[in-house]
Amino acid sequence: MGARIEADYLIETAEDPRRAAETMAGEQSSGTFVPVPGETADLKQRAGARVERLEVLEQCAAPSLPGASRPQGSAIRRALVTLSWPLENLGPSLPNLVATVAGNLFELKAFSGLRILDIRLPEAFGTAYPGPRFGVEGTRRLSDVWERPLIGTIVKPSVGLSAEETASLVGELARGGIDFIKDDELQSDGPACPFEARARAVMRVVNDEAQRRGKKVMFAFNLTGDLDQMRRRHDLVRDLGGTCVMASLNSVGLVGMIELARHSELPIHAHRNGWGYLSRHPALGWSYIAWQKLWRLAGADHLHVNGLKNKFSEDDDSVIASARECLTPLLAEKPCIAMPVFSSGQSALQPPETYRRLGSADLIYAAGGGILAHPQGVAAGVASLRGSWEAAMSGVPLEECARTHPALAAALQSYGG
Amino acid sequence: MGARIEADYLIETAEDPRRAAETMAGEQSSGTFVPVPGETADLKQRAGARVERLEVLEQCAAPSLPGASRPQGSAIRRALVTLSWPLENLGPSLPNLVATVAGNLFELKAFSGLRILDIRLPEAFGTAYPGPRFGVEGTRRLSDVWERPLIGTIVKPSVGLSAEETASLVGELARGGIDFIKDDELQSDGPACPFEARARAVMRVVNDEAQRRGKKVMFAFNLTGDLDQMRRRHDLVRDLGGTCVMASLNSVGLVGMIELARHSELPIHAHRNGWGYLSRHPALGWSYIAWQKLWRLAGADHLHVNGLKNKFSEDDDSVIASARECLTPLLAEKPCIAMPVFSSGQSALQPPETYRRLGSADLIYAAGGGILAHPQGVAAGVASLRGSWEAAMSGVPLEECARTHPALAAALQSYGG
Repeated sequence: MGARIEADYLIETAEDPRRAAETMAGEQSSGTFVPVPGETADLKQRAGARVERLEVLEQCAAPSLPGASRPQGSAIRRALVTLSWPLENLGPSLPNLVATVAGNLFELKAFSGLRILDIRLPEAFGTAYPGPRFGVEGTRRLSDVWERPLIGTIVKPSVGLSAEETASLVGELARGGIDFIKDDELQSDGPACPFEARARAVMRVVNDEAQRRGKKVMFAFNLTGDLDQMRRRHDLVRDLGGTCVMASLNSVGLVGMIELARHSELPIHAHRNGWGYLSRHPALGWSYIAWQKLWRLAGADHLHVNGLKNKFSEDDDSVIASARECLTPLLAEKPCIAMPVFSSGQSALQPPETYRRLGSADLIYAAGGGILAHPQGVAAGVASLRGSWEAAMSGVPLEECARTHPALAAALQSYGG
Repeated sequence: MGARIEADYLIETAEDPRRAAETMAGEQSSGTFVPVPGETADLKQRAGARVERLEVLEQCAAPSLPGASRPQGSAIRRALVTLSWPLENLGPSLPNLVATVAGNLFELKAFSGLRILDIRLPEAFGTAYPGPRFGVEGTRRLSDVWERPLIGTIVKPSVGLSAEETASLVGELARGGIDFIKDDELQSDGPACPFEARARAVMRVVNDEAQRRGKKVMFAFNLTGDLDQMRRRHDLVRDLGGTCVMASLNSVGLVGMIELARHSELPIHAHRNGWGYLSRHPALGWSYIAWQKLWRLAGADHLHVNGLKNKFSEDDDSVIASARECLTPLLAEKPCIAMPVFSSGQSALQPPETYRRLGSADLIYAAGGGILAHPQGVAAGVASLRGSWEAAMSGVPLEECARTHPALAAALQSYGG
């Protein structure tokens, strides 16, 4: 018996759920909308997808998505389905994995809801793909931050600063004790702030401050672009002594990310902007649990997971599940652990709950407005985050800690309102 | 005044629509969830996104997507919004365009629905990207099919046939007079049917039949994979005398597609499998009108649009609008016309209505089961499609044409039930 790929789905259908699951298996392997002569029993046995598990759940009052068929009088039911495919069909190829486990499924008339919940892959994928080359350990080594989260921020305003203005803000943040800074995902290489000018200006300041402090701020330069551009920008950052590059996953796509990771000598900060269009509807698209596996195998070292009480629509349970998954081994022989990045509306308020629920400090904690809009300035913003995490990890309530920590006290007052 | 990028959205919000639109503009340019010191009026003027148009539409009874904020007692309203950005922010970069016009927007709490409807780009994008190198004209030249659609099919069963079995089916189809054949999107380079063996076996037959018929079947080999694999596979197809390669857009991503197009000396058949997870919910994700522009600029020569009365959930109006858009110039100086591919549950039944509604024969008409499951065999399947298109284009009703056309008559009976 050869190795098989498995995928779990939530489905919603007005058909018999067993029959609907068989339709999925057919559509994504040897079947089509009518029987064709070549689809013999032997071929089906060899190449067909199989329904491994089916668990029928509750009925729903109305279809979640339009366009589904509904035989008269039939109830709409949800179900959990697990399909499997022989690895022989596609080999350990990430792009072809996407066509196989996702592909046309979401358009099928039989379904008024279809969401991919998880995938399980044979070890061969770990041989074919690099996985994160730095992960938690490499990121800690390059940033020299141990046994606590990296405290980070995003350059704000996201766009509009010149290269020199960006560098000046970076200097202020470095002197304030920041560990990690990233470009905003909107800032890459526009004429208003060209990548090369920004990288040179920022790294001059980062290197100067590193000499002074004996510790180098990790700056994730957003090199998102065409492949040759990304490679050139990576090489420039490396040559300037930089320690991180950033790419927007949904902008570059899988092949872009695989190529960048193969080329990169620096950790890759993987930004998931666009994630909402893949996941916002609970009965459609991708769960983060399934989706992030693709990118970890491709080579993402840091993966965004939003944060507790974020400015977006994602709830806290989902955020914690996402972060935990990044820290859970993907394959036995290649765990592909990526560092979760908490970001989006974060400030000194959320660390205690974040630490309590995640049970780990292996993360990057990035606050944009939460540092840059601190009423006492940038250094106080950084100090408030550091203070909040120290309180969180030593089990001291924030309010107690704030009594002797003016920056934290100001943050609680400013962001708590 | 520099050039600007524009994007149109459908939004659904319980906030004041004007304020919600301003939130979008802020989030996707110089703003964040709190004011930051650096966001001066001058910077905002220079780099901020602008709300160009706002048209408030109907109220809705319930939110389309969960997780949105809803101030007590407030009504949920839909609106059309147009935003614009200075090209200076990002330059003519397709990956960064995606981060800018889509990015984090779909996750924002202010919205219970957000869909990107269209984008309009400055001519600079046409200078930066190749666009389709073959399009309608190049495809007709290579396939020697003029003034009518290319009649095509998909190898079925999709997976499970060996290289030799695939070639044998291709021979049968070529002798039946087919113009175009494609691999299924599930078949690329698995151990069960390796790409190289399949390409060699298929091209042997294609070349033999071309010698006999004086006309070469266009076979779109699915080379979806990592970049080096795609380049090697392309070179093999070219060296064997092949005339088309195929890639799954959502599997390879934008950077993969751009690189493939820069490398390719053959038309690129762009498969949109996965499209459902981007578009199935009408208040989320991407419209095809917006999305296909990215891929045409990147270099797609053929683009899938489903077909009338397809096996999926898409309605006919949407199919026709998609196909029309592929044939509409994208930029004044670089029209980027791509050939629409009608596929999914197609047979001899749909051509008259397709021609009547599209008003053009510049398309590929691909029927899998509609040819391979024809009761009189593959050659009759091809003949029935040819007959149906001839009837469509000369304005003769199908039933009338079928009286003297046994293959068409059999198709109408077989697929019409």
